[in-house]
Amino acid sequence: MSVITVGTMAFDAIETPFGKANKIVGGSATYAAYAASYFVKPVQQISIIGYDFPEEELESLKARGVQLDGVEKVANKKSFFWKGLYHEDMNTRDTLVTDLNVLEDFDPRVPDSYQGAEFLMLGNLMPKLQISVIDQLKQKPKLIVLDTMNFWMETAMPDLEEALKRVDLLMVNDSEARELTHQYSLVKAAKKIREMGPKYLIIKKGENGALLFYEDKVFFAPAFPLEDVFDPTGAGDTFAGGFIGYLAKTGDISFNNMKKAIIVGSAMASFCVEKFGNTRLKELTAEELNSRIQLFRELTSFETELGIDL
Amino acid sequence: MSVITVGTMAFDAIETPFGKANKIVGGSATYAAYAASYFVKPVQQISIIGYDFPEEELESLKARGVQLDGVEKVANKKSFFWKGLYHEDMNTRDTLVTDLNVLEDFDPRVPDSYQGAEFLMLGNLMPKLQISVIDQLKQKPKLIVLDTMNFWMETAMPDLEEALKRVDLLMVNDSEARELTHQYSLVKAAKKIREMGPKYLIIKKGENGALLFYEDKVFFAPAFPLEDVFDPTGAGDTFAGGFIGYLAKTGDISFNNMKKAIIVGSAMASFCVEKFGNTRLKELTAEELNSRIQLFRELTSFETELGIDL
Repeated sequence: MSVITVGTMAFDAIETPFGKANKIVGGSATYAAYAASYFVKPVQQISIIGYDFPEEELESLKARGVQLDGVEKVANKKSFFWKGLYHEDMNTRDTLVTDLNVLEDFDPRVPDSYQGAEFLMLGNLMPKLQISVIDQLKQKPKLIVLDTMNFWMETAMPDLEEALKRVDLLMVNDSEARELTHQYSLVKAAKKIREMGPKYLIIKKGENGALLFYEDKVFFAPAFPLEDVFDPTGAGDTFAGGFIGYLAKTGDISFNNMKKAIIVGSAMASFCVEKFGNTRLKELTAEELNSRIQLFRELTSFETELGIDL
Repeated sequence: MSVITVGTMAFDAIETPFGKANKIVGGSATYAAYAASYFVKPVQQISIIGYDFPEEELESLKARGVQLDGVEKVANKKSFFWKGLYHEDMNTRDTLVTDLNVLEDFDPRVPDSYQGAEFLMLGNLMPKLQISVIDQLKQKPKLIVLDTMNFWMETAMPDLEEALKRVDLLMVNDSEARELTHQYSLVKAAKKIREMGPKYLIIKKGENGALLFYEDKVFFAPAFPLEDVFDPTGAGDTFAGGFIGYLAKTGDISFNNMKKAIIVGSAMASFCVEKFGNTRLKELTAEELNSRIQLFRELTSFETELGIDL
């Protein structure tokens, strides 16, 4: 099965308490595509880059089965650039620079060769653009996943509401779920969000794991307790890519299989943060991934029989 | 097997975004004893109360198998009183009033009838007093658990360090673990704390669950995603009481059994917060507890076979 990933391909400058990287390749669609490419081919990328985006990165993506027909290259503009400073907790960060550059002109086009894709991952973008991608698809995918952020809730809520009606799964972090619904309780927020459209909801809580809501059911995936987190950038997009990649590999969008997909996404994200940028995502082996997943299992497994008779 | 629980028996005044309670029975040892009493008898209480502590509460504890020989009653002073205001997130709170009252004179005495107890739960108190209880025991218990807080790290660190050398398990929240070790990474903090004495460490993360560290192993117990949290007061002490109560019931302090005990403690805590004060802890049935534990299991269980071959 094929996956379309939509989002940014960009440069990041990152400072964390453990080091800094001046200008490395980043962007939501880059991380998502690398992560998904471990599970499914082709990954069909839709994005926009400037003249300065490195050719070797494009080659590296192609070599992993990522199609770039939907990536527009603008000859006279630079790629999107973001500079951020992480605080000691690695969960909060300050944005120091946002240079939109090519992103100002982004009008995503779905190439003919992408038609018929079964899975669609809409990375965080202006909701109008996310809707435009859905509109261009001649056949509704089996699963549409949408990521968004508080900025769009504050500046483009009507469009976001429209987008939510047309997707199957929303992926947000806990503060975004609260902002979207004005509910502090995540259980209540989840109910409200599912009334807005998406049947499935994933609430990401960073180092505190992720929750999946569907009907009256809930599943919780822990984050892996790492000794060192070097760079959280891209962890959420890597999670998304691993999640949808695993679903596409198996072709099964049942709640039970989504649980597994969340564990796979969490495992991929736990690798992502071990080094700066997407370094770690280019070098993973099946052994590493399987043994990390085994650790995830052990992390929350306990024996069934508790024998409680009060 | 028997459990000694040491801590406060007090009055609380609580305000949350969902309501307020003017003066209700609280205290770390009260919550811990109620929770432990579901699993083990006798629970042997060590605490101090004033003339104003309600007789019916003492009767209610006794009826649940809690021995009160170690509870000193001061005829001319009031019980310890705490007043707090919870913020909307229910994880942070402001202390509005702390009236130590009888607590100023607390010098815990272990009655002869308590000698030989296999389990000791030292609730959060001045470390000197925690050490004094350990010193009075003629026979070292099978497991000594210590709870503490940042206040003692700032005002009585040498005593706390001495206490840590003499206990088997430390129970703190994430910010306390960080303050104690000057390490942000909880994995690193856990290593350092275990070098300070306790073989086992539980780091509580409130609505984000709890971690158990032992040797190079780690277990994670989620908190139950509740629709409404009415009053988080006592949740940590209830967790502690359920944890040590289950261990005492089973008499098994292996890592594997501690995992179960943490789930039991988390389940007890999830009931505690559903109503103000200790109301819920007086009325639980085995059915309720077992079915909540089943929900905990379902919350993190996923099928074993992922079939990942990259």
